[in-house]
Amino acid sequence: MTVIDFTAFIGRLATASGETILPFFRTSLSIDNKSASDFDPVTEADRAAEAVMRRLIKANFPQHGIVGEEFGNEREDAEYVWVLDPIDGTKSFIAGFPIWGTLIALLHKGAPVFGMMHQPYIGERFSGDSGSAHYCGPSGERRLTTRRCASLKEATSFTTSPLLMNAADREIFGRVESAVKLSRYGGDCYSYCMLAAGHLDLVVETELKPYDIAALIPIVTGAGGVVTNWEGKPAQSGGRIVAAGDARVHEATLKLLNS
Amino acid sequence: MTVIDFTAFIGRLATASGETILPFFRTSLSIDNKSASDFDPVTEADRAAEAVMRRLIKANFPQHGIVGEEFGNEREDAEYVWVLDPIDGTKSFIAGFPIWGTLIALLHKGAPVFGMMHQPYIGERFSGDSGSAHYCGPSGERRLTTRRCASLKEATSFTTSPLLMNAADREIFGRVESAVKLSRYGGDCYSYCMLAAGHLDLVVETELKPYDIAALIPIVTGAGGVVTNWEGKPAQSGGRIVAAGDARVHEATLKLLNS
Repeated sequence: MTVIDFTAFIGRLATASGETILPFFRTSLSIDNKSASDFDPVTEADRAAEAVMRRLIKANFPQHGIVGEEFGNEREDAEYVWVLDPIDGTKSFIAGFPIWGTLIALLHKGAPVFGMMHQPYIGERFSGDSGSAHYCGPSGERRLTTRRCASLKEATSFTTSPLLMNAADREIFGRVESAVKLSRYGGDCYSYCMLAAGHLDLVVETELKPYDIAALIPIVTGAGGVVTNWEGKPAQSGGRIVAAGDARVHEATLKLLNS
Repeated sequence: MTVIDFTAFIGRLATASGETILPFFRTSLSIDNKSASDFDPVTEADRAAEAVMRRLIKANFPQHGIVGEEFGNEREDAEYVWVLDPIDGTKSFIAGFPIWGTLIALLHKGAPVFGMMHQPYIGERFSGDSGSAHYCGPSGERRLTTRRCASLKEATSFTTSPLLMNAADREIFGRVESAVKLSRYGGDCYSYCMLAAGHLDLVVETELKPYDIAALIPIVTGAGGVVTNWEGKPAQSGGRIVAAGDARVHEATLKLLNS
């Protein structure tokens, strides 16, 4: 592999974005938001953090491309492209729940080669390069490994909300819900990290943007899991996503979704 | 008030229970659980932490009563009674999500006079004595205050899951869901703490045990909120609960639930 090791630089991006976002989390700013004005703390935090990360990338790798939610795409055909989502899980952020995260992905020739989810309030990072995946946080450092799960009837499944699905997809998703042991809602990026850490078996979602999923792919695959779209194709373009910790569960889910 | 200040002692209980629970959170023990044996890490952690807290209480206040999920009730007619729930939010715990908490309440002559929610993985504590409420955690220390919310149509509402309600209650709860601005699921004890911190407006639940709610009452009321059962009576016996940050939302919700 000729891929450069960007690990230290991605750590700098995560630190800078976390420092930018945290003053907006659980502050009186968000409390005043309803009454006061058009000030929206999540959007402000999102924009400020993306700007900080873009500045760092441009200063260090001016030839790289950048894809982000807030400021659009730049040089998206470059050999290396950064895909940024400063706050994935904005509804959790607004309600004060610490299960949102900053997503940073690096694509090389279109394929995600490194991804990080950073939760700055808790101080934890989940990262992966498809070959391996790692956790670093309050309980130390460790390698992430998905757990074995032989079949859907033993699987715990997550989706952020079935209400985010269109009616047709929701009906198809219903087949998965009927087949699994336990179906739970909520989680956004956090669900994929818990899948990588071996605490749940399946995440099925729709309507994802590239920046919602690109960073999570190298984490899940690095931990031994499988991520594709509902057609079994690469997931980095977003859309309808299936992530499983065990290939058998992934295959069974694809079958159900396409039956 | 002749109520003794138990603050420091409750801090010791929280620290001891946190140290007991954390080795069971996100460990390979829970990963192996499915295949290996009857070992259930949540139940083990729950029991071990309740035992540690009971030992500390008995050693320091042998005349006090204790109510807990795992080891039943002792001297529940004593002047002071401790109400303990080491892990509120077991489903989040199992899935690796850090939005569970240890609940510690102190009742004086049957009324909750002090409550704490401790999240040991994040290292944050929410506490209250009905007169005031406080946060201590990664973002420092601060006083908790609920936010103003004039009506249900501006309110963000939480319930852990409508699937935990019986059919009749779920139908009644549907009236609240139709009236609020945003209805969200999940959260357990965390929702009440975010209500106290001013990030959401309403929590409506059913089937709660005394140990699910007793500790949260002094936190919510200390922050300026209102907690009762669906009949508007004291909430510490559990059952069907309404907690609101603004008395106007509480009143409007009670009206809807009893209409």
